[in-house]
Amino acid sequence: MMEPLRWRDDGRYVELLDQTALPEREHWIRIQTVSQMAEAIRMLRVRGAPAIGIAAAYGVVLAAHETDQTDGDLRSHLRESITALAETRPTAVNLFHALERMRLVVEDWDGGDAEALRHLLLQRAHSIYDEDRSAGMRLGENGLSLLRDGMSILTHCHTGGVATSGYGTALAPLLIAPQHGLTLRAFVGETRPLLQGSRITAWELMRAGIDATLITDSMAAHVMQQGLVDAVFVGADRIAANGDVANKIGTYGLAVLANAHGIPFYVSAPVSTIDADTQSGASIVIEERDPLEITHGFGKATAPEGIRVYNPAFDITPASLVAAIITEHGVLRPPLDLALTALCMDSASSAESRHHV
Amino acid sequence: MMEPLRWRDDGRYVELLDQTALPEREHWIRIQTVSQMAEAIRMLRVRGAPAIGIAAAYGVVLAAHETDQTDGDLRSHLRESITALAETRPTAVNLFHALERMRLVVEDWDGGDAEALRHLLLQRAHSIYDEDRSAGMRLGENGLSLLRDGMSILTHCHTGGVATSGYGTALAPLLIAPQHGLTLRAFVGETRPLLQGSRITAWELMRAGIDATLITDSMAAHVMQQGLVDAVFVGADRIAANGDVANKIGTYGLAVLANAHGIPFYVSAPVSTIDADTQSGASIVIEERDPLEITHGFGKATAPEGIRVYNPAFDITPASLVAAIITEHGVLRPPLDLALTALCMDSASSAESRHHV
Repeated sequence: MMEPLRWRDDGRYVELLDQTALPEREHWIRIQTVSQMAEAIRMLRVRGAPAIGIAAAYGVVLAAHETDQTDGDLRSHLRESITALAETRPTAVNLFHALERMRLVVEDWDGGDAEALRHLLLQRAHSIYDEDRSAGMRLGENGLSLLRDGMSILTHCHTGGVATSGYGTALAPLLIAPQHGLTLRAFVGETRPLLQGSRITAWELMRAGIDATLITDSMAAHVMQQGLVDAVFVGADRIAANGDVANKIGTYGLAVLANAHGIPFYVSAPVSTIDADTQSGASIVIEERDPLEITHGFGKATAPEGIRVYNPAFDITPASLVAAIITEHGVLRPPLDLALTALCMDSASSAESRHHV
Repeated sequence: MMEPLRWRDDGRYVELLDQTALPEREHWIRIQTVSQMAEAIRMLRVRGAPAIGIAAAYGVVLAAHETDQTDGDLRSHLRESITALAETRPTAVNLFHALERMRLVVEDWDGGDAEALRHLLLQRAHSIYDEDRSAGMRLGENGLSLLRDGMSILTHCHTGGVATSGYGTALAPLLIAPQHGLTLRAFVGETRPLLQGSRITAWELMRAGIDATLITDSMAAHVMQQGLVDAVFVGADRIAANGDVANKIGTYGLAVLANAHGIPFYVSAPVSTIDADTQSGASIVIEERDPLEITHGFGKATAPEGIRVYNPAFDITPASLVAAIITEHGVLRPPLDLALTALCMDSASSAESRHHV
C-alpha cells in the first residue's frame, strides 16, 4: 500500500512523498508549516483529490502547532490558514470538504485550552485519513463486481495509493484484483502535461505486479478501435449532483471515445468527492495552470517562444456518458442524479444517527 | 514558404532542415550520401508524407553521384539504394510512389552514359518536388472553399511547409487564408510523442502571423465541447481506395470526437498520398516506433524503467468519419470510394494524354 504522507507525532511534522520526483526518486520531504503544505499542494508534490483533502487537514494541524498564540489570535490564525489552504487549488471538492470539517473543530472550540484544540484537530485529520482508507478498501471491493478475469482496463492520470490514503480510487479494484484471483491487463495513458500516468500510475502498477502498457493519450482511440480495451476506469475531482464529473483533462475525451466504441466508462470516487451543492458540471471552476507545463514540461523548450497556450487542468464529463459511479457505499447506476440523491440522503441520515449515538 | 530541403547543384548535395532541432534551432544539415538520407528519414530529420517522398527521390540522385560505377554495377547500386530508402518507413505511401518513379528512370536506362542517367534522375526528383509544390498551392486554394472568416480550426501533427515542398497540406489553406482576407484561428495539438504540433506547426503558424493556441492532445475534446472548434483539418500518410485514412497517431480519436460534436473532419493530401492498390485501411502497415520516444522523449526518464510501451506512429480513420478529402484536383465528398475511383481514373487518363503528347 502506497501512502502519500505520514504524520510524525514525535516531531510534529508531516513526511510527504514528493510526487513530482517520481518515478526517478522516492523522495520524502518534511512539511513543518501550513505555508509549506500549501506550496506542496499548489506545486502538485501531493496530488489526487482525496490526498489533497488529507494533506490540507494536516496543514491545519501544522498551523495550530506552528504558533504559541492562544484564544482569539489562534482562532484567527487557523481561519486564515484554512482560507490559504482552500485557495491552493479550485477544482477538487475533497479539499473543501476536509477543510470544512477542520473548520468546524476550530469554530466549536471554546477558546480555552489550546493544547486540547491541537489534539482535536489532529484527531479530526486522522479521522479524515482513516475514513478515506476504509473508503478506498471498499471502493476496490465494490469495483471488483465490474471486472472479469482477463479484462483489459484503460485508465487515465493517477488514481492509486499516493493519490489517496493508500488504496486509490479507480486503481483500487485493479490493485486488489490479483488477491481475488483475477488477472487483469491495464493500458495507462501518460496524461499530459504532467504525466501522472507514466510517472506514477505505471510505477505503482509495476510495483503491484500488474501487466501494464504505457501509451500516449492520443493512442487511446486506436487501442479501443483494436478491441484492446474492455472498460475505462477513471477517478474524479468533483461529482456534481446530476452526475457530471470533473476529472483530469482528457477524461471527457476518453468518455466520448469509450461510448463510441461501446466500452463502459466507470468513475470511481469516495463519497467525499460528491458535491451535492453543485447542481451540474457547468458551475464547476476549472483550474487553468501555467503554460510552461506544456511548453517546457520536460526541462527544455518544446514549443516556440511566445506561443499562446491553453492549459485547463480538468474537464467535465456529462453524466450521460458515465456507465456507473463506484463509491464505498456501492455502485451507482443511471439515472445518476437520482442515485446520488439517494446516496447523499442515506449518508446524511447515517451520519446523523452516528451523531445521536 | 518553408522548404524541407534544397538541392545544391554546385556541390551535388542536399541541404536539409533538421526538423528534430525545431523550434530551438533552424539547423540545416548537409546530406551527401544515400545512407545519410536514409538515416535522416528514419530519424525524422525530414518528415511529413510528401517531404519523405521528395527526400527519398533526391536520395536516389545522391546514390547515383556517390559512385564511379557504370553499367550494371551502377544499376545494381541504384536498385539497392531504392530498396534501402523504401525500408526507412512503412506507412506513408508517397515514399513508395516517389521511389517507383525513380526506379522507372533506372530501369529505362540503356546502360550507356552514366552522366545522362544522373541528369535524368535529378530531373525526375525536381519534377516530384515541383509537382508537390504546385499540388500544395492548389490544395490550399481548394481548401479555402471550406473556410469562412473567423473560423477556428483544430489541427494535429504538422502538415505545413517543411512537411511538403513548401506549401503544406492541411495547413495550406490556413497559411494562405490571410492573403484572401480571411482571419482564422487555430488550435494546435502538441502531438505526442514527438511533438510535431508544438515544435513545428506552432512555429510555422507563428511565423505566418496566424492566431494559434497550443494544447495537449488530451484537450481536444474539451475545446470541442466548449464550442471553440469549427472544423478539424489533418493531413494523411496514405489514403486507401475506400477512403480510409492513415495519419499520425491521434487522428482517429479526433475524427471520432469531431463527429460526436457535429464538427466537420477534413483530410487534406495530394493525389500522391492516395494508394489505389490498398483496398482499405485494414491492410495498411502501421509503423511501431521506439518505446524511448514515450519514456525518454525529452532527454529524461518520464516513466519507470522496464515499463511495457505501445508506440504506434499512425492510426486508421475510417472513411465514414471523413467529411471531405481536399486534393489538388478538388474537394472529394462522400461516398469517398466512388470519388477516389473517379479521381484516379481522371488522373490516369490525363497522365496518359500527357504521355502521348
